[in-house]
Order: sequence, then structure tokens, then C-alpha cells
Amino acid sequence: MSTVTYSKPPDSSLSYFKEKYQRVRNQSLRLCAPLEKEDMVVQPVVDVSPPKWHLGHTTWFFEKMILETHAKNYQVYHPEFNFVFNSYYESIGKRVLRTDRGNLTRPTTEEIYKYRAYVDEQMLAFLNTTTDLNPEIANLLELGLQHEQQHQELLVYDIKYILGNNPLFPAYTPKETIPTTESRPLVFLPISAGNYTIGHQQEGFCFDNELGVHQVYLHDYEVGDRLITNGEYLEFIEAGGYQDFRHWYMEGWAWVQENKETAPMHWHQIDNEWHQYTFFGLQKLNLHEPVTHVSHYEAAAFAQWKGMRLPTEFEWEVACRTHEATIHPEANFIENAALSTLGATEGHYQFYGDVWEWTNSAYLPYPFFKTKEGAIGEYNGKFMINQMVLKGGSFATPKDHVRSSYRNFFHPQLKWHFTGIRLAKHV
Amino acid sequence: MSTVTYSKPPDSSLSYFKEKYQRVRNQSLRLCAPLEKEDMVVQPVVDVSPPKWHLGHTTWFFEKMILETHAKNYQVYHPEFNFVFNSYYESIGKRVLRTDRGNLTRPTTEEIYKYRAYVDEQMLAFLNTTTDLNPEIANLLELGLQHEQQHQELLVYDIKYILGNNPLFPAYTPKETIPTTESRPLVFLPISAGNYTIGHQQEGFCFDNELGVHQVYLHDYEVGDRLITNGEYLEFIEAGGYQDFRHWYMEGWAWVQENKETAPMHWHQIDNEWHQYTFFGLQKLNLHEPVTHVSHYEAAAFAQWKGMRLPTEFEWEVACRTHEATIHPEANFIENAALSTLGATEGHYQFYGDVWEWTNSAYLPYPFFKTKEGAIGEYNGKFMINQMVLKGGSFATPKDHVRSSYRNFFHPQLKWHFTGIRLAKHV
Amino acid sequence: MSTVTYSKPPDSSLSYFKEKYQRVRNQSLRLCAPLEKEDMVVQPVVDVSPPKWHLGHTTWFFEKMILETHAKNYQVYHPEFNFVFNSYYESIGKRVLRTDRGNLTRPTTEEIYKYRAYVDEQMLAFLNTTTDLNPEIANLLELGLQHEQQHQELLVYDIKYILGNNPLFPAYTPKETIPTTESRPLVFLPISAGNYTIGHQQEGFCFDNELGVHQVYLHDYEVGDRLITNGEYLEFIEAGGYQDFRHWYMEGWAWVQENKETAPMHWHQIDNEWHQYTFFGLQKLNLHEPVTHVSHYEAAAFAQWKGMRLPTEFEWEVACRTHEATIHPEANFIENAALSTLGATEGHYQFYGDVWEWTNSAYLPYPFFKTKEGAIGEYNGKFMINQMVLKGGSFATPKDHVRSSYRNFFHPQLKWHFTGIRLAKHV
Amino acid sequence: MSTVTYSKPPDSSLSYFKEKYQRVRNQSLRLCAPLEKEDMVVQPVVDVSPPKWHLGHTTWFFEKMILETHAKNYQVYHPEFNFVFNSYYESIGKRVLRTDRGNLTRPTTEEIYKYRAYVDEQMLAFLNTTTDLNPEIANLLELGLQHEQQHQELLVYDIKYILGNNPLFPAYTPKETIPTTESRPLVFLPISAGNYTIGHQQEGFCFDNELGVHQVYLHDYEVGDRLITNGEYLEFIEAGGYQDFRHWYMEGWAWVQENKETAPMHWHQIDNEWHQYTFFGLQKLNLHEPVTHVSHYEAAAFAQWKGMRLPTEFEWEVACRTHEATIHPEANFIENAALSTLGATEGHYQFYGDVWEWTNSAYLPYPFFKTKEGAIGEYNGKFMINQMVLKGGSFATPKDHVRSSYRNFFHPQLKWHFTGIRLAKHV
Repeated sequence: MSTVTYSKPPDSSLSYFKEKYQRVRNQSLRLCAPLEKEDMVVQPVVDVSPPKWHLGHTTWFFEKMILETHAKNYQVYHPEFNFVFNSYYESIGKRVLRTDRGNLTRPTTEEIYKYRAYVDEQMLAFLNTTTDLNPEIANLLELGLQHEQQHQELLVYDIKYILGNNPLFPAYTPKETIPTTESRPLVFLPISAGNYTIGHQQEGFCFDNELGVHQVYLHDYEVGDRLITNGEYLEFIEAGGYQDFRHWYMEGWAWVQENKETAPMHWHQIDNEWHQYTFFGLQKLNLHEPVTHVSHYEAAAFAQWKGMRLPTEFEWEVACRTHEATIHPEANFIENAALSTLGATEGHYQFYGDVWEWTNSAYLPYPFFKTKEGAIGEYNGKFMINQMVLKGGSFATPKDHVRSSYRNFFHPQLKWHFTGIRLAKHV
Repeated sequence: MSTVTYSKPPDSSLSYFKEKYQRVRNQSLRLCAPLEKEDMVVQPVVDVSPPKWHLGHTTWFFEKMILETHAKNYQVYHPEFNFVFNSYYESIGKRVLRTDRGNLTRPTTEEIYKYRAYVDEQMLAFLNTTTDLNPEIANLLELGLQHEQQHQELLVYDIKYILGNNPLFPAYTPKETIPTTESRPLVFLPISAGNYTIGHQQEGFCFDNELGVHQVYLHDYEVGDRLITNGEYLEFIEAGGYQDFRHWYMEGWAWVQENKETAPMHWHQIDNEWHQYTFFGLQKLNLHEPVTHVSHYEAAAFAQWKGMRLPTEFEWEVACRTHEATIHPEANFIENAALSTLGATEGHYQFYGDVWEWTNSAYLPYPFFKTKEGAIGEYNGKFMINQMVLKGGSFATPKDHVRSSYRNFFHPQLKWHFTGIRLAKHV
Repeated sequence: MSTVTYSKPPDSSLSYFKEKYQRVRNQSLRLCAPLEKEDMVVQPVVDVSPPKWHLGHTTWFFEKMILETHAKNYQVYHPEFNFVFNSYYESIGKRVLRTDRGNLTRPTTEEIYKYRAYVDEQMLAFLNTTTDLNPEIANLLELGLQHEQQHQELLVYDIKYILGNNPLFPAYTPKETIPTTESRPLVFLPISAGNYTIGHQQEGFCFDNELGVHQVYLHDYEVGDRLITNGEYLEFIEAGGYQDFRHWYMEGWAWVQENKETAPMHWHQIDNEWHQYTFFGLQKLNLHEPVTHVSHYEAAAFAQWKGMRLPTEFEWEVACRTHEATIHPEANFIENAALSTLGATEGHYQFYGDVWEWTNSAYLPYPFFKTKEGAIGEYNGKFMINQMVLKGGSFATPKDHVRSSYRNFFHPQLKWHFTGIRLAKHV
Repeated sequence: MSTVTYSKPPDSSLSYFKEKYQRVRNQSLRLCAPLEKEDMVVQPVVDVSPPKWHLGHTTWFFEKMILETHAKNYQVYHPEFNFVFNSYYESIGKRVLRTDRGNLTRPTTEEIYKYRAYVDEQMLAFLNTTTDLNPEIANLLELGLQHEQQHQELLVYDIKYILGNNPLFPAYTPKETIPTTESRPLVFLPISAGNYTIGHQQEGFCFDNELGVHQVYLHDYEVGDRLITNGEYLEFIEAGGYQDFRHWYMEGWAWVQENKETAPMHWHQIDNEWHQYTFFGLQKLNLHEPVTHVSHYEAAAFAQWKGMRLPTEFEWEVACRTHEATIHPEANFIENAALSTLGATEGHYQFYGDVWEWTNSAYLPYPFFKTKEGAIGEYNGKFMINQMVLKGGSFATPKDHVRSSYRNFFHPQLKWHFTGIRLAKHV
């Protein structure tokens, strides 16, 4: 258990990276294609980043971490871009304060596209001229691609926030999926008490926070066999859930009062009917699809109102491995292009895709967790305080990006991302 | 004195308005032409508005105040634009909170250009089919054009703020004027004690805050025969002006401490040399041109350090009328296209143009001031608290927009606009 | 006009100062006598100072300005008290931040009483051994006493705030005055246009901000012959005054919204009946007594609703001198011990006493105003921005402290002090 | 495992409660005895409560929870005290906002002492007339006493904050203990991997958050055999620990920057020598005593700098039970009256007393945790977000109040309480 390798790319061959590099890089452009240039610039709240910043920042990662250090005679594209596109890597230089990102109208989107083209050209030249990828570079390459996939997901959240908070409620794309029209009854899946192994145990890449495979003891418990729907959450609202402090953490209750919270984000009550801003514009609320855009406070209050609780990350991981050992074919990932939550069909437990499921585990280091030296070491460990773990991926996650040991994490008050609820209980 | 007309357009003929309408409206587009679409969107601080918002808001004014009310069968361009482009007219509807403007990526610039084209077409059709302009409409037309000119000036401030706070320091336009290379000695112009008439006494348009022509008694005084230069202000900095509380109002001193103020806005000390962001990019500080981008706190502290003071708005108005009765041919207005302060040549006292001069008068109603009924009445009176009067116009002001009685006003801590300093003293 | 003396004590003789010193110093103690020790400590909002701090600070003024500099072999009472009891005199040392005052439980009230006794003993010894008061010391003595009188007035405001914001609404003292039961109709007093002399023209002490006697021209105007009553102000409330933005400055309206303002401070609507916290506890609102605890925003909105305005400080001063040249015997000052506003009787115009009257003049320097050198020079000039002038004194003002040229000043949003409204209009 | 009783008083006999009630209640008065009345009132920061509020609130608990409900004909002392002394029990009534506590000068300390005397008299009468304590009342009684003990500890923190932030640095009491003059080398105590039982397994009272006895699996680990000393922490400071972001959580680093943190609370560097405010006044820093007044951020940064980590709450509990099964006779609790941390002697591991030890466990519910119905149910569960667990008690904790399963919890940025550091590591 004492020596762990940071990441294990499934295939360190150059052909693997050449294919994946182009596929992942193109996906970022594809996601931005439906946007207007104006949409690329703004940062309406501190958690949202401007789309063009995501495009620049993910490019900067490859320039800084690979080309500058490992490509012979590499010429930096622009001396100021390190300053502009760095995010929180304190070891690399004075970063742009996160709240200022939305005021940087330059470099323009056009210029950033040129920057991407330049770096992509250099990266492919680098991959074409290299005969042997050493493990350090292979790790950095894989990390850069995983990092870009993470930003693609954030990009989708941020696009929804930017368009959904515009009084014109513009659609991002026309709707193509057929709305779910019914939901099956909620049933609980049992898991027996015992010691379980937690963490990344397969081949392939993982983040440092999944390493430190270790044992946990779990008592008998059960988890819901699907996600909570909009309809079920609406019952909580209609039962006065947002008016009764007894369901809430003290901080959650203060958050409700201060922000006058009454519903998930992007819900709008218009003429006494509930609507939801979606990527297809404003739509009537679909009662049979999983609820999303709830904070941890709301997820926990809902569970408390139901007399149950959220699962721990360990319970979730074991339940997922037990009941959905391989990803269900209907799992709703970005490749689906549904851009929406979807109802659970028979036998589909929705552990993967649709929405990230809030667990009741704080984001803390696993036993044996070690921070790497240097800038790469800043990746995950520095966030291990005051955040909660989410599991399973969302409809904005690339399918090859997630796994049962993947630990996502956010502050409990956040809800601009695609979050959801699975219930758990002791027997 | 008891009946005043709200405004007196110099020529109520249709031809006057047709010409002016097209000239003023085109000027807004011309000012935005050098910008990228990204520049059109953002609101980096609350006082700055997005350029595309200025374009929409000034258009909305004509749609709302004239076309909707006075043009037969007028079809509103978009039902939500009233909500999006209203500013502070509380009587007309729920406004967009000022701080949210910079998050509205839609309507896009393109869409706003279409909106402008539609309204312009309708306005010209209206002017072409009207045979007789009644005074109410004439007043509204003139007000709409004056209003657009005010926003053109704000637009220039805001563009400078947006570009000048970008770490790439992009130029708005290439430099065309020849830098001033010397400044003449400061001499004081005397004015004798006596009763003077203040306010708008000529023909032609004025704002409601200039009405109420009245008498003030002034004691003997003198004012400087030119604006204070960058060089003179630099002496204040180098004498430790920002470190000595004795020169400052208590609030000014708190403002210096809290914001770590050390120089006018857009000044940067790089390798021990002072630079200034200008519309032509970052340049070495020109010591012979008027200082600008100073708050009232800084202007007052400078004057206090010199053992003098700022003139009152009454002293300024009388000095201007006495010594620069007609606008000097070298007065530096937007038509000059200098886009920069310029040094004072022999015999040019710079009362008009270059920079708005902070006075030591609070912005208060003149005797006999009356607020008009309705939305138009919200124009000026509601700001008459906690602001200071500025006089004379700037290099961003249209020449036909300003006059000696014109009262501009801003909060004393602001400095993103083109402000400057003229000294005064008692004999 | 060019040389002014800073202050002119009416009588520089030692006997004058010995008597006044003891009288003024005792009054501070008398005001605190009804308080509990707990009341002496707190600072519930930034504008309120703890009563024990007032006692210490006024004492420190004599120690620092007179004893330390002018009394031979004077031994400072405690080396840290300069740090603790300094207020805003930046030239003397690092001050305690104003917001921290309410956390300083030591020195205790008891200790401060000892400090006062020590300084008083030393001051009287100094006065007894001095044979000749030079003008500098006489000026400082007078200033110290005037300063203590100012703090006595603040002390009364602060006591009311501290007790009136306690849910137990404790009385400070039993009620002794008979409530006013009717109010006479409001009549307007005319003043003719002309040049008037403004500023301190009599013998005797004045503050530096009253110096610079100068001319102002006033047009014909009229002012109300008494203060506005609670009953008249209640009509404004009942007419929806706090719900209609048209009466308010834009900043005033924002202030109403943000603070959910609905009435003067210390008014409470209990079971549909209006009550008022007074120094005698919670009482039913007396409709015939002058309204107090209104901000400038509220005073201005009331006047606007009435179709009138507030007088300027110049109009007030001239009207007072014209119509109440000598202080009316019924003027309601602290010596009255009414501790409440009182209704206006026949022929009593209430220019003096009762409540400080908000004017529509910003607090700005008079022509010829000069800041004194040194710490004393910090007295008034540094506040001459963003504040409004009030005139006439209140029921908490010592009678010998006020005069027609006295310029009090506060920020327009404040209302914990005894403010009131007099209407004015042009003919 | 499925039925747990909420609390198990060690002895439900009336004599047990009569003795404990008087002992605990007197202790609160004893702690306040050295204070001045002025010290009783203030709330310098939101986390500190005024001492007199602690006295009132703990009394209110007995009045509200026992006398009002269970004592026949009980007469409430004052109808407003429920409003004034309620803390966060949302089910009982509108609470006083926490930040307002420090402005309530009334009821006075004297009045609160009377309130205590009244309630004590009634409680003892109730205990004397009751012949049989039913379990519900016994539980409430025990809870009330435990609650008062918790407030006694907070009282000690708050007193230190109030006096220690006064520029006069007043002593609370004279120093009586002999300073520690050396510290023994740090040795690590090993624990073997395996399943361990966690939670309250003994007889006697516990809080609801300790219930739900459950299994956890622990891997091999080691913990330090004593607390970290001031001297060891000083090495971290001198090695630039507060200037190097790599040791810190991102939030911790932001906290350091924003608050300009450079040392534990109450440390002062005077003339290049470190001092510490203690209950005996300002003293030279004792290098051999345990460091205290560090936030979780600081504790975690220190551990990271040492290449180690903090133990989890489970590791701590098992290590304590393994190595200090019974409380060491030198354990430093409030009964010691040391009022200071003390050095570790041979064989004394300091698990109990001295300082609360930050663990790296978030405060989350144990498996099977159940919230009780009603106001009592608000006790602990509502805080289970964003806080970290601390273990072991401090020199301000009553010895009979703590046990190995006791879970204290605070937000990670807090440091006004008596916190400390024990290191842990994997083998």
C-alpha cells in the first residue's frame, strides 16, 4: 500500500494519445459552437467562468506543463497568457483573481481560437516527433486531457447559468429527446454489513484523491434504486419544506433565509405553474425526470423530511459496484447529447450519469493520501476542507471520464451544477 | 421667474431634428466601431455600463418616449427590451438592477444594431410624415438627443475603463495628435465682488437643473488661467501627498487607505517611470498635459496642499463667462478626435473641453427648481444629494452639448471619467 | 475680512473659566447618573459611542491639549489612555478604530471617574495658580468646554439609542412634563430678497466653520413658523409616502428599500397603534409634538410630498435672525430637562431648541475659511464633504452652546439624533 | 443497535441531582467573580457571547425546559427573558440575533443574578418536593447541567477574548502555577490495523452525537505521545510557514492572506520577542507548553509542514482508549485552576485536558444517528456541516464533562478557543 503511482494511463502508446488529444480538444470547440461571442465573455457569479476562459485555460495547461518544459525550442504564444489563463496554480505565478475573469474582454474568442490552433499544432508535432513517451510526459498528457474534460463539464454548467439567467431565456440548442412521461416506484437496494475496499483498484488513470486503496467497515444499509424526481421534490416544496427549519442544517436554514430560496435553481413559477429553464429554453417542469440544481443543503433537507438520509461516499461506491458493476447502456452521459436529465427505465439504477449525487461525506483525504511535489501537487489536496463529495457523473460528463471511485466535490451551498439526490437508510 | 419652460430647442423645425437625429445616432455607432464584440458586453465595476447597453438604452429612450406614445400604430420591437434597457426610470417598470447589466449577453450586439436600425427607420418615418411638431414632442426629441450625447460621453469613459484594466493594454485607436512638449506658467485671473446672475439665460436647450436663473453674491476671487498638469500633480505625489492625512477630507483619507490610492486612475509606475494608459495604449506620462482621472478627494487634497482651493460652481461660471465668453477655437471636444487631454496654448484658458473641472459645490437645486411630472421628471432632481458639480466638458463631450451653465455631477470618490483641476483663491 | 481670530471667549477672566469648567464638567456626570454600568460600555452601531468613552474622551482633551503642554510638571494619568480615548485626531497618535470602542471594557467606568477627578483637580490647580491666561490657553480652554458640550449632546443621543433598542424599553427617567395636547396651524413667515450677511458677527466664541463672514443674495422666500409635528408626518406615512419613489432622492429610495424604512427611528406600531420610545419608556405617539429622528432623506421626501422644500442654511439663518432675534423664553434646551420635543405655543417659532433642523445646504466651507495648523485644525474642515447642515439646537443642547450662525452637520442617512423639519418655499 | 436511549444519567437519584445542580450552578458564578460589570456586557466578535448572557441563557434553559413544563404553578420570572436568552432554539420562539447580544445592556448583571437566584430556588424546591424523577425529567436535568458546563467552557474562552483584546491587557487572576521549563522528545505510539468500535459504550450520560455505536476499520497508524509545544510551532513560524502556500488548504491560505495571520491568537511580538496574553496578563512565550489558539487551518498546515497529518476522530478515540484508558491524574482540567496549558510530564500523553485537539474528521452523523423530536432535537444534528471534530477537552473543561467518545466541533477558521495539535502518520 505504501507506493502508489500517480496515474496509470490505460495505454501509453503514442497512437492512444494522438487520437484522444484530437477528440477531447475538438469537443471543447463543439460545446462552444452554438454560443454567440457575447456569451463567451461573462462571469455572472464567482463560480462561473467565461467560456472563452475555459478554452484558453485548458490550452495553457498543455503549453505550460508540456510544451514549455518538454518540447524543444518551443516558442511561447504570448508572454501575458500565462498571467491571464492560470487559475489557481500558486506555484506558477501571480494568478488573475478569479472574480476578475469576467472583465477580460481581451484576448478575444478569435484570438483564443488562434492560440488553441497554435498549441494543437505544436502538440501534434511534438507527439509526431517523439519516439518514446516517458512516464512523466505520459502522465502529464493524460492529466491535461482529463483536466480538459473536467472543464468541458464546467463549461456546460456555466453556459446554462449564463443563458438561464438572461431574461430572454435563449435556447442553446433545439430539443431532440422525447420527454419522460412516467416514473417507476422507488425501491431500496440492500447491502450487507462488512469490510469493503474503497478507492481506485482497476487499471487506468485516476486522480490522486482516489488513491490510497483502503478498507472501510459498513453496517447493513439500503439505497434507492433510482434518483429522486422533480415530482417527488415538488412534494417537498408543497409540503412547506422551505418554510420549516426542522428539516435543515442551521447553516442551510440561514442560507434559505438569506437567499430567499424556494426551489431548485432554474425553476420558475409562472402563473402558478412550475417551469424549468433547460438547454432548449423555458419548459414546463417534467415531473418524471430526476431533480437537479439542488444544493447539498436542499438534498439533505429533502432526505430528512423523508425520514431518511443521503448515502456516504463509501456506501455509494459499494452500492454502485454491487448493483451496477458495469455502466448501464442507458447511462446518460454527454455523448448522449440529451443535455437533460432523463427518467429511469426498468432495471436502470442511474448510478452513472444524469446528475452528480450528493453524498453525506465530507471531502477528506483517504488514508495514505500523498500530495505530489510541484504544481501538479496542487491538484486536489488543497480543496480537502468544507466541501462534500459527489459521485457518478452527470449528463455533461464524458463517459470515459468517470468511474465508481471518482470523487467530485463542491461546497454544500452550490447548485449551478448538475446535482441530484439518491436516498439511503439503515435497515 | 415663476414660469420656466423645460427646454428651448434652438430650432423646432423638422429639418433641424432630421439632421441632428441622424448625426447624433451615427456618432454612437462610430464610437463603437473600433471595439471587438467581447468589449461590448462587460461591466467591470458598477459605474461602467456595457457599450452594447448604451446602444440599446439610448434607442429604447426614443422607442418608449416618442414612438410608443406618439407614432401611430407603432409596433414595439421586442416586448422584453423595455425590461432590459430601462435604466433608472422607476415610473416605467421594473428595471434591471444596475449591477446585472454586465451579465446580459443577449440581446447580442448584432441584435441591438438591428433594434437601432428599426427604431431609426421608424423615427425618420415619423419625422417625415409629421407635418407639425408640437412642443411636447419637440422637447422629447431634443431631450432624447441630448440624452444620447450624454451616453456617448459615458461610453468613452467606459471603453477606456474596459480596455485600460485589461492586462494586455489594447489600444483603441492609433495616436494621431502630436504630444504637448511644454506648459506655460500658471497665472491667476481676477474677478471682482458683486451680484451675478447664474443659470441658463440664453436661447436653446438646457436641462432642468440649469433653470431657475438667480442671483448670487461673490466676493473678490481669482481662478487659474489653465488646468493643472500631470507634472504639477506629480509634484504632489512626490511630496508625499498620498501619505499625509492633513491634505485630505476624513472621508477622502479613508478612501485613500481602503483603496491603497497612490495616483490618478490609469497611471502605472513601471521600472520607476510613470506611464499612463491612453486610448493609444500604454504611454510615458506627458508632464505638460492636464491631469485627469482624479477624484474630488484628490482634486481637493491637491488644492489644499497648494494652499488654495477649488472654485465653487458659481465662481467657475462667472469666470468662464468673463474670460472665455465664446468657446475658444482650440477647445478640445470630441469633434477634435484627440481622445486625450492637450496642453494649454497662449491665451487658451481651457474652461471648455479637455476635462470636467471639479468644483467645490455640492449638486443642489437652484432656487425655483421644479421637478417635472412623470418619467421625464426623474431626469435630474433625484440625484441632488451627495454629489459634486463639475463644469466645462471634456475631450469626450460633443461641442454643441455643453455651455457655461451646464451642471455635470458625480460622487466625489469617482475617477473613471475625464476629470481635472482648476485652482481658485480669495484675494 | 482677511484676519479672523479663531475664537473669542466672552470673558477671558479666570473666574469665568473656573465657574464654567466646573459647571460643564459636572453636567457630563449628571447625564450619566441614571445609567447602569452595563449601559456605559456598548456601541450598538458605529455612530453611537459608549457613554464611558465620552467621559474619558472629553477628559483626555483637557489632559492632552492643556495639562500636558501648559501645566508645569504634569504627570500623565495613564500612558495608554491617549491611545484609548483619542478620537479622530490623526496628528496625535494611532487612534482606536471607531468601531472597536464598544469592545473596550477597561478602563472601567469607575476608573474613568477617577481619571476625571484627577484631571479636574489638576485643571483647577492650574487655573488657581495661573495669574494670566494667554489667548492660546484661553482659546483651548473654551474649545475644550465647547467640545465637552458637544459630547454631552451626543451622549444624550447615544443613551436614547442604547436604551431604545433594548427589548425591555427601559426608562431613563420618569416623565415630568405635561404632554402637548394641541398644535396651532402652520403659517409662513416671509423674507424679502436682498444681500444678507452670513456667519458669526457677534462677540464670543464660535467654531472655525462659522468664520468668514460673507454676503449671500437671497430671493424672496417664506419659512414655516413652527416645526412639523408627529401628526403631520404621520399623514405622510399614511398617504403611502414610504412606498412612492417619486418623493425621494434616488439614494434615499435605495436607503428606504435596503433598510426597510417605514417611520422615524424609535417609532413602533403595536396592535395598529403608533408608539414612540422616549426617555420615559414606550409611550403612545403624541401627534402635537415636533417629529424627530428623521433622516435628511425623510425630511426632504416629506417636503417634496408637501410640494415644498427645506430651507437652505442661509435662509434659515436670516429667517431666525429676522423673526427670533433673541432666543424665545420657551426655547426647549437641555436646561429645561424636558428630554422630549414640545409643542409650539403662540408666538414661539421654535428656531432654537427642540430639534436640529435639516437644511438643504451641504456642509461646505464659507468663503475665506481657513484650517488652523496642528491638531486643533482638524476640528471641522475635514468633514466638509457629503454631509448636510442642521441649525438651531435641540432639547439636548446647552442653551449657551448654540447661536444662529452655529453649523451642525451629519450625513443625510442618519437619524439617531434629534433632527426635525421646517418647511420653506419660494413666493 | 437499533434502540438507543438518549442519555443515561449515572444516577437518577434525587440526591445526585441536588448535589450536582448546586455545584455546577455555583461554578458559573465563581468564573465570573473576578470580572468587572463592564466585562459582562460586550460581544467583540460574533463567536463570543457576553458573560452575562451565558449566565442568563443557562438559567433560561432550566426555566423553559423544566420549570415551565414540569413544576406546578410555576411563575415565569420575566415575560421578555425567553426572547432575550434563547439562543438557537428555533422551535421555541423568535430568537435575538446572535450579533445583537452584545448591545443588550439590560437586564443588568445584577438583575440576572436575581433571575438565577429565583430559578435556583424554584429548582431546588422542585427537586425537594418531587418524590420520583421520571426519566424524561432526569434526562432534561442532566442535559441542563451538561449544557451549563459547556457554557462555562465557552465563558472561559470569551473572557480571555474580551480581556486579551483590550489594549490594557488586564489580568483575570494572579498566576499560581509554576511554568514548565522543559519538554520531552516527541515519540509515536503505534496502533494496529483492525475493526474498532466507536461511540459511547459506557454507562452514563452522553450527547446524541456519540450514540450509534458502530464499527470502523483502521489501518496501521501512529500518533504523537504528547501535544505540540509553542516551541515546535514557533519553528514553523520561523521557517516561513505563514508565507508558503504549499502547506495550506486553498481556503486556509485565503484566510491567512485576508486576516494577515502570522501566529496563534493572543501571541504578540514586542521588540522582537514573542509574548502571549494569558489569564495572568501579558507574559513571555513559554516554549515548553502546548501551543493553543490555532485554527484547524494552522494545525493542518503545521502537520503538512512536518510531513505528517492530524489523526481522524476515530484514530484519536482508539489511540486514547488504548494508551490512556483512564484519565491521567495530571490531566489538566478546570478543577486544576491552572488556567493555562501545561507541559507533558513523563508517561502523560495529554489525551485529556489541556487543549481540544483538532482532528481531520468532519463533524458528520454516526451511522444510526437519529434526531430527537422537539426543541431538544435541535441540540447537535443541525450543526453537522462544515465543522471539524475536536477531542479530549481543555484546561477549561470540567473533568466529569468529557470522555473518549465526546465530540466537540467548530468551524475550521476559529481559534479563540483552547485548541491544539497532536500529530499522526501512517506506518
